[in-house]
Amino acid sequence: MSEKVLIIGAVALGPKVACRLRRINPDIDITMIDRDSLISYGGCGIPYYVGGDVQELEGLYSTIAHVKRDVSFFRNIKGFNVLTRVEALEIKRSEKKVVVRYLDEDRVGELDYDKLIIATGATPMRPPFQGSDLPKVHVVSNLHHASAIKTAISNGEVERAVVIGAGAIGIEMAEALTDLWGVETTIVEMADQVLPQALSKDMARIVEKQLEDKGVKLLLSQKVIKINGDMENGAESVEVIDQSIQNVKQSDSTGKAILTDQSVQLIQNTLPCDMVIIAAGVRPNSELALGAGLAIGRNRGILVNKRMQTTDPNIYAGGDCAEVTNLVSGLDCVMPLGSLANRQGRIIATNINGGNEQFAGSVGTFCIKVFDIGVAKAGLTFNQAKDAGFDPVYAVVAQSDRAHFIPDADFMFMKLIADRKTRTVLGVEAAGPQGDAVKARVDAVAPLLKFGVDVSEICNLEVSYSPPYASAMDIVNNAGNALDNTLNGNLKAIDTFEFVELLQQGKIKVLDVRSHVQSAPFVEKYPKQWINIPQDELRERYVELTAVLNELKESPLYLICGTGPRSYEAQVFLNSKGITNTRNVQGGYGMILAIHQPLV
Amino acid sequence: MSEKVLIIGAVALGPKVACRLRRINPDIDITMIDRDSLISYGGCGIPYYVGGDVQELEGLYSTIAHVKRDVSFFRNIKGFNVLTRVEALEIKRSEKKVVVRYLDEDRVGELDYDKLIIATGATPMRPPFQGSDLPKVHVVSNLHHASAIKTAISNGEVERAVVIGAGAIGIEMAEALTDLWGVETTIVEMADQVLPQALSKDMARIVEKQLEDKGVKLLLSQKVIKINGDMENGAESVEVIDQSIQNVKQSDSTGKAILTDQSVQLIQNTLPCDMVIIAAGVRPNSELALGAGLAIGRNRGILVNKRMQTTDPNIYAGGDCAEVTNLVSGLDCVMPLGSLANRQGRIIATNINGGNEQFAGSVGTFCIKVFDIGVAKAGLTFNQAKDAGFDPVYAVVAQSDRAHFIPDADFMFMKLIADRKTRTVLGVEAAGPQGDAVKARVDAVAPLLKFGVDVSEICNLEVSYSPPYASAMDIVNNAGNALDNTLNGNLKAIDTFEFVELLQQGKIKVLDVRSHVQSAPFVEKYPKQWINIPQDELRERYVELTAVLNELKESPLYLICGTGPRSYEAQVFLNSKGITNTRNVQGGYGMILAIHQPLV
Repeated sequence: MSEKVLIIGAVALGPKVACRLRRINPDIDITMIDRDSLISYGGCGIPYYVGGDVQELEGLYSTIAHVKRDVSFFRNIKGFNVLTRVEALEIKRSEKKVVVRYLDEDRVGELDYDKLIIATGATPMRPPFQGSDLPKVHVVSNLHHASAIKTAISNGEVERAVVIGAGAIGIEMAEALTDLWGVETTIVEMADQVLPQALSKDMARIVEKQLEDKGVKLLLSQKVIKINGDMENGAESVEVIDQSIQNVKQSDSTGKAILTDQSVQLIQNTLPCDMVIIAAGVRPNSELALGAGLAIGRNRGILVNKRMQTTDPNIYAGGDCAEVTNLVSGLDCVMPLGSLANRQGRIIATNINGGNEQFAGSVGTFCIKVFDIGVAKAGLTFNQAKDAGFDPVYAVVAQSDRAHFIPDADFMFMKLIADRKTRTVLGVEAAGPQGDAVKARVDAVAPLLKFGVDVSEICNLEVSYSPPYASAMDIVNNAGNALDNTLNGNLKAIDTFEFVELLQQGKIKVLDVRSHVQSAPFVEKYPKQWINIPQDELRERYVELTAVLNELKESPLYLICGTGPRSYEAQVFLNSKGITNTRNVQGGYGMILAIHQPLV
Repeated sequence: MSEKVLIIGAVALGPKVACRLRRINPDIDITMIDRDSLISYGGCGIPYYVGGDVQELEGLYSTIAHVKRDVSFFRNIKGFNVLTRVEALEIKRSEKKVVVRYLDEDRVGELDYDKLIIATGATPMRPPFQGSDLPKVHVVSNLHHASAIKTAISNGEVERAVVIGAGAIGIEMAEALTDLWGVETTIVEMADQVLPQALSKDMARIVEKQLEDKGVKLLLSQKVIKINGDMENGAESVEVIDQSIQNVKQSDSTGKAILTDQSVQLIQNTLPCDMVIIAAGVRPNSELALGAGLAIGRNRGILVNKRMQTTDPNIYAGGDCAEVTNLVSGLDCVMPLGSLANRQGRIIATNINGGNEQFAGSVGTFCIKVFDIGVAKAGLTFNQAKDAGFDPVYAVVAQSDRAHFIPDADFMFMKLIADRKTRTVLGVEAAGPQGDAVKARVDAVAPLLKFGVDVSEICNLEVSYSPPYASAMDIVNNAGNALDNTLNGNLKAIDTFEFVELLQQGKIKVLDVRSHVQSAPFVEKYPKQWINIPQDELRERYVELTAVLNELKESPLYLICGTGPRSYEAQVFLNSKGITNTRNVQGGYGMILAIHQPLV
């Protein structure tokens, strides 16, 4: 008798395991179950269904040849059985059986297995504030959610929406609501930046500015305390507390009694709305595994070895319900991504069939489109690197994403992070209007991260070159060079947003090495702070800085140009003349414009 | 006294060395010489100057801030001396002097050095056929050439042009002539494909079809025998021999006396034209190094160690005049690329200043825009792999370059090559309408090539994923999977162009597993050859193939679908039913449309 393979969950990893397994083994007995009736869908496509790129819900569970991926598709084309509306209740490991409930028949039964795959996915979190279960409050996970959201919007029921959470799904949903439907959308995020898991704070500001430029209202450092409304009318408004103001209050007062009636007036805010979307992360569906005594990790995901086996070698797990080792930090994490699930699924199928493929882990690649820009990252952000025990150092560069004379050339911004002591590259982040070009740079660095390479590998990274697609000295190489210069102590930098804050507080003096024409409006607007000596005059005129330097005493002189290289060149020149207390504005005025309104 | 650094050549590598060296060492004495008056230009931008993206010649030697990179730029801004119109005649290594001629003063002198950098670049080859030195015959290398070509065209002197050589420069020039100026352009290439150094033959066909679709006439396997014309009127036509016809003649006849008067009539062709552009490759300018007794490699480039030192440790070389180790084949080669020159330049500067940076070699990344498509590659082509002693196996896949529901999703084509025995990845090639997305895939594989990774590393390559930029199972992973399946013997494939030839010779039978609607026109056009059983009916109806298989005897049955995966699935299914002699058309009908006119 042929071996019985049972798969719990039929969305991403489950179908991949089953299809691959059938292809490499025509005889093995495969059954896949799912508690839902709609299966094998692209959950990551939901924002594009709401936003109109996918017209019909079927588009999310159809093949590229427009065939629906349903029970008969898997039976007739892929050659295995799927049972829908069947929920797994318990795994009896000693008997190699799974207790299931047939939801439409309200009966319980048992299914045998020789090999079991847990592909139960993850569930969107509903934070425990009041009102999170009201009508008109949605999460974004399965196709029923997708359909409910789109129906409400297309029926004209939604003029104002609040999205809770500024992770990828929250941002994608906000874009969908705003871009196609003109819904007045507010994103509320507890952290002081968007995409806190994916981006360092400065790179996140590029996304924040893009959202604001496109009319999405962004409330950062704000915590939802409740959703107002009732069961009849559904959600009517969202109450938030501004944690950043609260912090200011705390330092101003004795540090106690923050929520007096008076201060609540100041820091609490009510956001009226017709729809709430909760996009506050997901929780791995590991209860079944936990109940069966399988090991569960610190993020509540199922623990698996490199062969994707749980602590029971006959039971495999993968996708959103399992933990993944971050190959840079060494820490386990959850990575709810369809791409990962597909790659893991292939490995599980190979191994069940007697092969020995390994999934070592992930370097955390990520990308997202946000209206007119693309953003990507791999490895650790600055804060993640710190949390993992590294001493992170970084460089930020701004550069044309192709030869500057190519008509559609535009700015790209890149951040590269390494460990100070070992010079090991830890992470890379990039953003710019040409999303594919942004992805190209990050995906070129990503494969190296698990090898723990020195920064010089990025200086010399051999990315393909032709003027329509890159500069001769590509931004990725220049990011490596800037980080190398920083680690060597030649480049002393300041982030643009710190610089803008200091400038606007009137605290600092700036040497602008751009041309007279370019710097004139700045000199006029900041007469006591902004000095201009163009780069080609600096070797002759640097002595003019003596008075300024005397006035500055211990404070640094801030150097700026269009994107950073000319002011860096000024920095090393001034350094050679004994003027060593300078800071180069990383990414220059180009980076400022990406994160801030124009300074003049 | 400070150390004297002398740099011969002021185009790409030379200026990079000098600028970097000045930044990290304010005191070192730097002199750069060049025999030309125009220096520090982007030679790779010349086609974009001719094609109109760069309006003025100055754009090719200006910074992004529109500052001309001339002698005063380097003196005032970069802080070192450049002597133009000074030609190096001889290196006296024992005296550490270079004998130079001051071209405008017609006098000879000597320049001292402690460290010397040879950055003499390369010279376009002028093959030794008659007429290659006539007026109106151009090479494409420096700004004088660029100016001469653009002047002639913009004066309306050119209606028909012949480009000799279908490498990157030939193709870029053909696009510039056709696209902006409407010049009737013919490319003549000796090899039987375009880009023979960069692409395997099947991927090259995608470029060839694109050129033909855009009105560029392509003569492959044709050799130029002379350029007709005189010194007064310049080139008037190009005479070519069709080598492919010649070969047919040879196999038809006794193999002798091909060039009888009669056969010349058949195989010789005259191409009237007003301009000839020779783009037949370049030759490293290594004479100076050779004269000084430095080691020269098999490609006539200067040999350097990983620190970029020649066989004289006080003399460095890099850029187009030096050889580079191909890290996949282990063979030395020349790689005339501005990107490489810049990366090497930084390393030379660091090492002269006492550092120890290494340049290990190159994996031969390459990309090019050809009208509406982008093409990229890294590593070895199929033929290069064979020549290097490998036993190459490859897979070709066609797939949407982003989630298929994203509005601008389009086909991408990818070829992945590995060694049969070791499964080591040797090369990758890709093409498609979104050039940045093509580059992204190739640049993600490129960094791994020097590590000699197994194909499974590509199956599991962690490229960033989001529907606007990729499929959940990205084309790069699927290329890995297809190659893995091929190496395992599960996937038996045929290239599309071989398939089309066999089909049109009436020799084969095809099983199309697409829908009835899609396959009907093919069944009608090829009634004796084309059978349709849609994928979802194959499990029921495969027995109907018995008669066909009996008729085929030892010949394989060819399987086709839209892009390849469904016909692959059919292949493994049929295999499980004992129908083992099948071939899957790699990339399916999508790939056929990319290289060929529609079959129906």
